[in-house]
Amino acid sequence: MFKYDINENTYLKLLDLNDVDELFTLTDRSRETLREWLPFVDDVRTVEDTEKFVRNAMHQYANNNGIQAGIYYEGKLAGVIGYHQVNWQHRWTSIGYWLGNDFVGKGLVTNSMKAFIDYAFSYLKLNRIEVRVAVGNIRSRTIPKVLGFNEEGRLRDAEWLYDHHVDQVVYGLTAAEWKKLKSTNENTIVL
Amino acid sequence: MFKYDINENTYLKLLDLNDVDELFTLTDRSRETLREWLPFVDDVRTVEDTEKFVRNAMHQYANNNGIQAGIYYEGKLAGVIGYHQVNWQHRWTSIGYWLGNDFVGKGLVTNSMKAFIDYAFSYLKLNRIEVRVAVGNIRSRTIPKVLGFNEEGRLRDAEWLYDHHVDQVVYGLTAAEWKKLKSTNENTIVL
Amino acid sequence: MFKYDINENTYLKLLDLNDVDELFTLTDRSRETLREWLPFVDDVRTVEDTEKFVRNAMHQYANNNGIQAGIYYEGKLAGVIGYHQVNWQHRWTSIGYWLGNDFVGKGLVTNSMKAFIDYAFSYLKLNRIEVRVAVGNIRSRTIPKVLGFNEEGRLRDAEWLYDHHVDQVVYGLTAAEWKKLKSTNENTIVL
Amino acid sequence: MFKYDINENTYLKLLDLNDVDELFTLTDRSRETLREWLPFVDDVRTVEDTEKFVRNAMHQYANNNGIQAGIYYEGKLAGVIGYHQVNWQHRWTSIGYWLGNDFVGKGLVTNSMKAFIDYAFSYLKLNRIEVRVAVGNIRSRTIPKVLGFNEEGRLRDAEWLYDHHVDQVVYGLTAAEWKKLKSTNENTIVL
Amino acid sequence: MFKYDINENTYLKLLDLNDVDELFTLTDRSRETLREWLPFVDDVRTVEDTEKFVRNAMHQYANNNGIQAGIYYEGKLAGVIGYHQVNWQHRWTSIGYWLGNDFVGKGLVTNSMKAFIDYAFSYLKLNRIEVRVAVGNIRSRTIPKVLGFNEEGRLRDAEWLYDHHVDQVVYGLTAAEWKKLKSTNENTIVL
Amino acid sequence: MFKYDINENTYLKLLDLNDVDELFTLTDRSRETLREWLPFVDDVRTVEDTEKFVRNAMHQYANNNGIQAGIYYEGKLAGVIGYHQVNWQHRWTSIGYWLGNDFVGKGLVTNSMKAFIDYAFSYLKLNRIEVRVAVGNIRSRTIPKVLGFNEEGRLRDAEWLYDHHVDQVVYGLTAAEWKKLKSTNENTIVL
Repeated sequence: MFKYDINENTYLKLLDLNDVDELFTLTDRSRETLREWLPFVDDVRTVEDTEKFVRNAMHQYANNNGIQAGIYYEGKLAGVIGYHQVNWQHRWTSIGYWLGNDFVGKGLVTNSMKAFIDYAFSYLKLNRIEVRVAVGNIRSRTIPKVLGFNEEGRLRDAEWLYDHHVDQVVYGLTAAEWKKLKSTNENTIVL
Repeated sequence: MFKYDINENTYLKLLDLNDVDELFTLTDRSRETLREWLPFVDDVRTVEDTEKFVRNAMHQYANNNGIQAGIYYEGKLAGVIGYHQVNWQHRWTSIGYWLGNDFVGKGLVTNSMKAFIDYAFSYLKLNRIEVRVAVGNIRSRTIPKVLGFNEEGRLRDAEWLYDHHVDQVVYGLTAAEWKKLKSTNENTIVL
Repeated sequence: MFKYDINENTYLKLLDLNDVDELFTLTDRSRETLREWLPFVDDVRTVEDTEKFVRNAMHQYANNNGIQAGIYYEGKLAGVIGYHQVNWQHRWTSIGYWLGNDFVGKGLVTNSMKAFIDYAFSYLKLNRIEVRVAVGNIRSRTIPKVLGFNEEGRLRDAEWLYDHHVDQVVYGLTAAEWKKLKSTNENTIVL
Repeated sequence: MFKYDINENTYLKLLDLNDVDELFTLTDRSRETLREWLPFVDDVRTVEDTEKFVRNAMHQYANNNGIQAGIYYEGKLAGVIGYHQVNWQHRWTSIGYWLGNDFVGKGLVTNSMKAFIDYAFSYLKLNRIEVRVAVGNIRSRTIPKVLGFNEEGRLRDAEWLYDHHVDQVVYGLTAAEWKKLKSTNENTIVL
Repeated sequence: MFKYDINENTYLKLLDLNDVDELFTLTDRSRETLREWLPFVDDVRTVEDTEKFVRNAMHQYANNNGIQAGIYYEGKLAGVIGYHQVNWQHRWTSIGYWLGNDFVGKGLVTNSMKAFIDYAFSYLKLNRIEVRVAVGNIRSRTIPKVLGFNEEGRLRDAEWLYDHHVDQVVYGLTAAEWKKLKSTNENTIVL
Repeated sequence: MFKYDINENTYLKLLDLNDVDELFTLTDRSRETLREWLPFVDDVRTVEDTEKFVRNAMHQYANNNGIQAGIYYEGKLAGVIGYHQVNWQHRWTSIGYWLGNDFVGKGLVTNSMKAFIDYAFSYLKLNRIEVRVAVGNIRSRTIPKVLGFNEEGRLRDAEWLYDHHVDQVVYGLTAAEWKKLKSTNENTIVL
């Protein structure tokens, strides 16, 4: 019911318990692809694991520590985008996202990111957004680059992927940069 | 960001901490009118009291016990509508609502109620909705009547209003009734 | 040890962990009869389920939210009577009760109700007591009627009984009414 | 309402929030006498301090960790008797008690102790009861002696009394001893 | 890392999760000997039981309620010494200890006790330390005697040992006594 | 009592409530210097603020989420070093540190860091350690450089310093690197 319309066929919705079954199925079907770069996949074995994630997400919201939203495409749950946490003291957050296999290549994450960036800067009044991606996850690294984030560093061994560590690239974007980007590109396709 | 569009100038939004100031001001300005029938008004003395209400509402959502939404009209917070609780065992809930003085007479509550009724029956899969109103609160009693609720009883002395008890009228609506009403009236003004 | 004497062969006692075994046995033996109108019976499968109920009852007392008492007849646990909750803001409560098969027809509930009504009005200083009974539960509906409660309404589909909804009748009694009834009937059998 | 009758003019009652005012007054009036040997008295400055004690007592009961009872004499609160805790692993408890000035010398504590001893051994199935009293508190030390407790030791500096330590005498009684004492003395005045 | 050096081959260390495996093994290997006098042994069946004990010990520290330390001899975990609790109101604590079979007879407990006594009197500013030992546990009773504790009493049936009760001897030591003992014996072997 | 000896005049000790007064005084005396680069200083107004920090640190330990230690020089509290958190999933932590004015220039942080690095890699079995320092905090940036950390990136606006944002430099060190550094430098002064 409560949603954020991205365009005529895409919207975001706060995750709640009604989404558990569809979210588990989405994860399960793309399990092999997702686990290549996402460390949480192997911990999601049953629908109860997904329910636990959703309950945590609901409490994250209630504790004013950010939100997790479902990305819906043509009425179906296509993926998840969320703030990992909100650091109110230093006024920054970081964003994570993933899509099921069938929904890749439609611009869903890029468009959802724009909404989450706006929400963080305009609504939550934060000053900085981070995206952290494993170095080898080329597809995912495209997102922050296209959106105007700066590459700020490479944290070695920062992520454990089931049986080995991988380096993470950190991308950063400030509120001032985003404002400037939006004014520049407001009539273009990209933003 | 996450909202439910009612029509071109009205939407509902889950209450969060960003809404505290505007909600306190709305309550404070209509204090004299609201306190005639609503028992919570005198407990809202400062903006911290409103913040406490909003934090409780956020945890109510996180505990899967219903939601509280702001009613927005032309971009301004006009009132509040919410489920008092959800009784999952017996599958019913009750709804409460109020508007600030400046927003009365625009159909805002009636339209918001329709959204909340749909959400309760279609999304939460509940079976029964109650509205309880003080007998003397004529204006507020109009809402459930117009929407097709049945008057089911009169609970004597059920509400304490600062210095005296008042009787409450209970209105009830079942999922089956709502389905029938919607199919009948789908092309009419009322619903 | 701590009890309330109703008459020479009947008393009430706050439920505690010593009562768990006897309470489970009582429930289990009258299972078929009780489940016709009481929705909790099928959830009581083992003595641990009853222990959980008793622990909740003890915390209900500790949180000043009402009490649950065992009804004892000739030294044996015959049934349970309790306040579902206490609404201190509006100063009302509701009462529930049941008996094991072997103890029906001795006036145990009626007499226990008088004690609970007195306790609610005189000791807790409440103003209103409700009893809610499924419409078809004729035997149980007799109790509030005999005690002078008013029938105040019929809440449709308010109770879920394993596989179907039933309507509930709401009976209400105010402190003023009870005071008057007691003064009128003090030398009669009924009260 | 729920009480334990000791004799025609004395009973015990679980403490609850209704007792707070009377209990504070009782404490306050005997403040000077009580503080000579009881370390809690100076912490009870206002009625809120007593309310906190009573709430703790209610949760002690709910956590199955013993009870605190008011001693009532001719309808008035005369003192308090309670289990400090219940050690379920080793099956023992210890008992504390005090009376307001106006109620001393009527045998109230001795009689209440008998009830608490019976409750501990017969109802809670414990095996050992302790009473600990400051060495110099001669009047209070009489109680366990009269009841048949054995003096088991003297714990040096075990109690802090506002500005100095005092030694405590430990008295012990086992279930077997109590059973024997009761059978021997059942027709005498003492027990 | 954080430790208290007792002598060249013995030190104490706060227990943490790294110690769980070694502690379980130590307990398990001496199971038959330990259970003769220690009531906790039969509750330690798996490494998870030991982990639970260690987590409780960590929270005991965090709640300022005393510490549990491992006794290390030549780099191996030899036993445990700990405060059962700290009674800040009356400023006393009690100490418990045990060793695995292979580490008995090396003075490890006596030396660890001295450290714990110093810590309690000098660092925590307590005034009294108790040691409680089952009457028949002759070896363990030697410890407080050698260290200068006074035998203060014998609590009958105070400990439950799986299938029977045993009496406990209570030994006490005050800060003043310890100070005197240390000044007297500072050049001797005993202290 | 429980400490880690760094050299003959320096040791680390887990912070506990006994350290509160000395820690507040240390903070207070160096307030002007510390607040130039540390965002927490202005929140420490009274000794209660420091007590709150220490209680949090004790619970951080109890929750297995890292430790906070006092750095002691010649018996006096000189500063604090601690893990901000432990990320067990990805097996990394980050370290923070500060010294009072009178203790700068004695190598205390460098030496304490070595102990904390060893503890993290050898005892906690982590794989990566981060140090984050404000870009302009030249003195503090020397520490990770001297110890062999790699500069991995510059996070813009990542820290809020009372009235403006500053960039942070991220330094990283892996377990493999530290092992190699130690074997290379074991006979040198630096490590």
